[in-house]
Parts: sequence; structure tokens; C-alpha cells
Amino acid sequence: MSGFVSLVGAGPGDPDLLTVRALRRLGEADLVLYDALVEDQLLELAPNAKRFYVGKRAGRHSIDQEGIHRLMIRAAERGQRVVRLKCGDPFVLGRGGEEALALEAAGIAYEIVPGVSSAIAAPALAGIPVTHRGMAAGFAVLSGHATSAYGPAVDSIAPGSLTLVVLMGLRTRVEIAERLIARGWSAETPAAVVLGASHEGERRWIGTLATIANAEIDTELAGVIVVGEVVKLASVIGASHAIATTAAAANHRVR
Amino acid sequence: MSGFVSLVGAGPGDPDLLTVRALRRLGEADLVLYDALVEDQLLELAPNAKRFYVGKRAGRHSIDQEGIHRLMIRAAERGQRVVRLKCGDPFVLGRGGEEALALEAAGIAYEIVPGVSSAIAAPALAGIPVTHRGMAAGFAVLSGHATSAYGPAVDSIAPGSLTLVVLMGLRTRVEIAERLIARGWSAETPAAVVLGASHEGERRWIGTLATIANAEIDTELAGVIVVGEVVKLASVIGASHAIATTAAAANHRVR
Repeated sequence: MSGFVSLVGAGPGDPDLLTVRALRRLGEADLVLYDALVEDQLLELAPNAKRFYVGKRAGRHSIDQEGIHRLMIRAAERGQRVVRLKCGDPFVLGRGGEEALALEAAGIAYEIVPGVSSAIAAPALAGIPVTHRGMAAGFAVLSGHATSAYGPAVDSIAPGSLTLVVLMGLRTRVEIAERLIARGWSAETPAAVVLGASHEGERRWIGTLATIANAEIDTELAGVIVVGEVVKLASVIGASHAIATTAAAANHRVR
Repeated sequence: MSGFVSLVGAGPGDPDLLTVRALRRLGEADLVLYDALVEDQLLELAPNAKRFYVGKRAGRHSIDQEGIHRLMIRAAERGQRVVRLKCGDPFVLGRGGEEALALEAAGIAYEIVPGVSSAIAAPALAGIPVTHRGMAAGFAVLSGHATSAYGPAVDSIAPGSLTLVVLMGLRTRVEIAERLIARGWSAETPAAVVLGASHEGERRWIGTLATIANAEIDTELAGVIVVGEVVKLASVIGASHAIATTAAAANHRVR
């Protein structure tokens, strides 16, 4: 009997934004290895599983990447059904590719379960479509992690051409904004920070590249930075409905 | 009594990749307005709903955008629960922003239900992570629609810097590849076309920007183009598991 590993995207946080397959895999899991920002209410969907925290938050590493690979592989070799639960989508800046390669090398059966990426959903739930006719023909998603091996990817986008979504950039937001302005982006380009998307405490800050330095933001929270004209739509789409979507829908259902 | 509209992302096609909320909204719907490429098995999840096809495929318009807005608004005004079911995520190149603005202007209560975007999931299910350490620090998603108002967004990305994902680009793939090469991308940059992601007939073509012109591709299918070094990972991650993920997982469950 051999085990099986599912690399599962948890979505932005709200259990309602899990995929049907993710929900099923959690229900069947013997072991869940979960990241920072994955909340208890998601873990409760795996009632029969042992749950191990393997996250990293702002320099505090509980376990290194090799250690995560070892845990997955050993559990699968013991015949367990393992869910590697990753925020958002497993292949968006989450090292899911490395985990797939490690499983492949070890000869472990596995699957990828795509999830709702916070790069798209966090702006959406704040009323910001990442693309919009006449405003943005597309979007780019980058890591803002200061120590990442990803390099200065913000230089890759022609100024003002696409919506820019930066994940893991709360701590480096001032440097990112300065770099974009130096690169030719207008300092008046609208910018937003969405914190805790799809959670009850969801908050957003709206300003410009020039004013983001003054934003008071709790960098311990999960946050997404959005830069581009589409941010202007938040005042319309986000104002009355999008933020309170769950509550509004819930109220409507009671009829 | 007033109605309610849910702008729902259907994901790449497999009902298992619907979100839990999308599934619930379909089950409660009185009316489903669905796009091209949304399959019958998704519509069957809305057993009590009238279902109207409002899709557009390659120039054949069944109904214009204003008409879709009118249908949503009128149904909601009659007190109906409307699901506007859109492929992938409603805010990724799907005119979801325009629909939200129309509902807002009409004073209709609505919500956004983010979905699994094919821009990320189609590559993933073919074994291609859109980001990968040492290969791609981020990714950009663009429309390849020849007649789109989106313009030449492919010019926005510094050659070779990010993974490029092109939606609605099957018919224009040769022009896109030529334009990228003219812009400075290496003709040897790996490129993939993933057709029917998450469906049984899923297929993929792997080559380079130089050879994509020779690829025999059924442009009637839904397809995603991926350009960048990460495409190389498909031969490892995609080879044994990812493509056949559903079957592999199903077999494993029977124990």
C-alpha cells in the first residue's frame, strides 16, 4: 500500500472559497502540512488528520523546505494520504513546483489541486478587477519578498501598462513604490493594499504610489498590493457590495 | 422582495474545481446565464434554474454585453437568484467588471465569487508552475484576442523576465510569437499550448516560440498559451502525474 500526496491550494482563507476537490481531500486526509496564514477553520475540515505547521513568516522559519519534502515523502511511504495545504494556489509564488519535483524524484504518487489565488481574489473582493476594458489589458503577479531569489521583477513591466499585483510585499512596499516611480510609473498611479481578504476582518487602504509610504499597515497580516488604474473601480464596485459579500448574500438567502 | 446576482467563476471546467460557494449558488439559482465553454455537467448543478447561453465564440455573438446586463437586471428585479457563470475567474479578462458596474448602476444587490483561473490552473494541470525559483519571479496574464480593445499588451513585458500566459490566443498565436521575438524574446524560449485543461480530453503541445507556428491546434477548443523557462518543468512534473491527476487520485481512493 502506498500513500498519496495532494498539493492543495487553500484559496484566500474563507472555507467557502475552497474547491470541492480540496474539501474532499481534507476530509480524507491522514496528515495535513499547512502554511502560515492557513486558519483553524480550514484545518477543522480535516477531522481525522494529524496537522503539522510548516509555515514561514517573515524570517521565522519553523522548518526548512527540505524538511517539508521529507515529511511529505515519509508519510506517503507509510501509506498515508497527505494534504500539503498552501495559501492561495500551490503554484503561485508558493514553492509548489519544488515540492512536486521532490515527490517526483522520490517516486511518490501526487496531484496538483489548483486553488483560488489571492493575487486575483483579494483585489476582486475589495472591488478591484485585475483586468478591465480600457484600463488594463492584463496583469502581472510578482513577489515583493525582499530576500527572495526572484530579483527585481518589478522592473519587468512597462510603466502603467498592466495591473501589478504584489504578494508578500507589505514590508517592502515603500521600496517597491520608489522603484516603480524611478522606473517611470507615475507617482499618481492608484494603489491599494488589501488585508485579510475573504476574512471577517478584511480591510483595505487606497491611495497612490506616492502615498503608500504613509499608509499605516499591520505587516503581520496577509496582504496584497495592487497598482494600476483598476484600483479606481474599488470606490464603485467595492463600496456597497463586494466587501460585505458574504453577509449580504447570507441575508438575502433568508427569505 | 428583491433578487440577487452572483458573478461566479466556474473554474477551468471540472466541477471538482468549482468553489464550495459557487456550487451552493448554482444549487439555489433561479436563472443561470452562462458563457461558451461552460459544460453541461456544470449546468446540471443548477437543477432548478432556467439556463440561458449568453456566450461569444470567435466572432459569433449570440447576445451583446448590454443584453447580458439587461437579462441579469430584469431577472433580479423580478426577485430571482441569478448566477452569471463565467469561465475561470470572473475578473480575469471576462468583462466581469463591466457587469458589476452595470448591476451597481441599476441598484441590484450582487456579489463576486472568485474562481480558479485557467491562467494558472491550465498550466498547473499540465505540470507547469507559473512561478518557480530560479526560473520565473512572477507571471503576466494577457489576452490574445485579435480584436480586443486590450492592445498590444505583449509588448509590456521585458523579454524573458516573467512567465507569460496568454488567454484567447489560439488563433493569434503565430502573430503573438512573432511579436515577442521581434520584441527581443529568444526564439528558443519554451512555449506550451494546453487545451481543455481539467477536461477528459486534455491535451498539450510543447515546443518553442519558433515552432509554435507549426503546431496543429484545434482553435475551437479552449486553450492557454504559456511562454517561459517554466515550460521545461512539464516534462518532469507533468509526465507521470499531473495530466492524469483525477484518474490517479480516484484509483488511489479505492483501497
